[in-house]
Amino acid sequence: MMPTPVELLTIGYELLIGKVVNTNAAWLAAEFTKRGYSVTRITCIGDNEDEIASETKRAIERGAQIIVTTGGLGPTFDDITARSVSKGLSLDCVINEEALKMIEQKYSSLNLPITPERKKMAELPRGSKVLRNPVGTAPGFAVKKGDFLVVGFPGVPQELKEMFKLYADELFPPKGEMVEFFVKARGVPESSAAPVVERLVKANPFLYIKSHPQSSEGSSYIEFHVYSVTSDPRIKSACERVAKELASELIKMGAVIV
Amino acid sequence: MMPTPVELLTIGYELLIGKVVNTNAAWLAAEFTKRGYSVTRITCIGDNEDEIASETKRAIERGAQIIVTTGGLGPTFDDITARSVSKGLSLDCVINEEALKMIEQKYSSLNLPITPERKKMAELPRGSKVLRNPVGTAPGFAVKKGDFLVVGFPGVPQELKEMFKLYADELFPPKGEMVEFFVKARGVPESSAAPVVERLVKANPFLYIKSHPQSSEGSSYIEFHVYSVTSDPRIKSACERVAKELASELIKMGAVIV
Repeated sequence: MMPTPVELLTIGYELLIGKVVNTNAAWLAAEFTKRGYSVTRITCIGDNEDEIASETKRAIERGAQIIVTTGGLGPTFDDITARSVSKGLSLDCVINEEALKMIEQKYSSLNLPITPERKKMAELPRGSKVLRNPVGTAPGFAVKKGDFLVVGFPGVPQELKEMFKLYADELFPPKGEMVEFFVKARGVPESSAAPVVERLVKANPFLYIKSHPQSSEGSSYIEFHVYSVTSDPRIKSACERVAKELASELIKMGAVIV
Repeated sequence: MMPTPVELLTIGYELLIGKVVNTNAAWLAAEFTKRGYSVTRITCIGDNEDEIASETKRAIERGAQIIVTTGGLGPTFDDITARSVSKGLSLDCVINEEALKMIEQKYSSLNLPITPERKKMAELPRGSKVLRNPVGTAPGFAVKKGDFLVVGFPGVPQELKEMFKLYADELFPPKGEMVEFFVKARGVPESSAAPVVERLVKANPFLYIKSHPQSSEGSSYIEFHVYSVTSDPRIKSACERVAKELASELIKMGAVIV
């Protein structure tokens, strides 16, 4: 069974000018991988309605089953993710009464009135399930169009993480787990190990091996990462066996396993 | 004058499983922004020939003038960036004699022979300028198709950075600079500041203001980032003036500028 393909759409100019490192994408990618999903693409674009709408559409065309957006849910004029996703899905973007209540309660507790900017955060794709934000103010949303699920989270990392934890089991039920084994070797250049890695991956198409040379080819430390995403315990054993075989082949080449 | 649009195509499964945070993208985005270019999109995909080829093509269709790839230049079987970019540009991927010489010299200095895996690193899009790698082994490439420039850098951050520094002035000559001013305010929620930010951005379309609330809306610390990419000193003055106006508006709302 192929893992469910997920795309991440991280939205915000602060990422495009390099002011912010996209740790949200790496965090989400690791979480989805652990749950047995396969992140197939991470796209970062600015707060641009047409681009967000067209990437949402294109994710469907590419065969993704889930797209997760981060960013653009707040009160400022350039927070336009909900409206843009609605456009991409050909859904109306409407005031969601439950979201509005959450926002009203929040501001009422701060003794602040509901302004148009605050009300805007309750405008969500028609049919959305509202996602409560236990840290900040802007609610998230989850909306289906046919079998395609779009989930919108805020861009503030702490808000994203807390909301993901609240809703992950419901929205992204675990489909397996990531099994992984590491082989750390000194004394063999990556290019010498390459044919062995290729043979092992081709003979075991259910797993993947990446070599991560820690500095240049001339020096000698490489971390090999043998992994698979699966719910089958036999695959876990097979990964372990392949990692051992890799280590023994590297030793034959003169490597020291560390 | 609109800044030259650049897309970053960061390649590698290690990014898609969240094993690696994409610091390369943020670093490149900041470097291009400082040089007066505009990064319009950052895409992260796996080592997949068709996807790399089609994203290269699509970047051209979207109006990018430069695409920079990172990753996939090494000796392992899944290092296929040069071949995939060639496909996207409808160019042959051929042994580049200059690249081959660099690689031969490197391995000869390590007393290692040229294997097919090592030779593969010299296969580059036809017509490429070879980029020397002072840290590692895999050379980079720069190739034009019409006015569209594709530059391929390695994914190892230290190699990427050294090679960028070596070739940036030639490949990406400075077209201006990023001018930026920060306003840090306590005591005003982001949603209260939003209408002022919107008015200032609409009145000064040559600049951008992003508000970065440092925690939840209920608390009160926001960093406002007023910036533009320009070679015009009048725009720098205008950004400074707008930052001052923003600060004075926030003070009127009860904020403390810190």
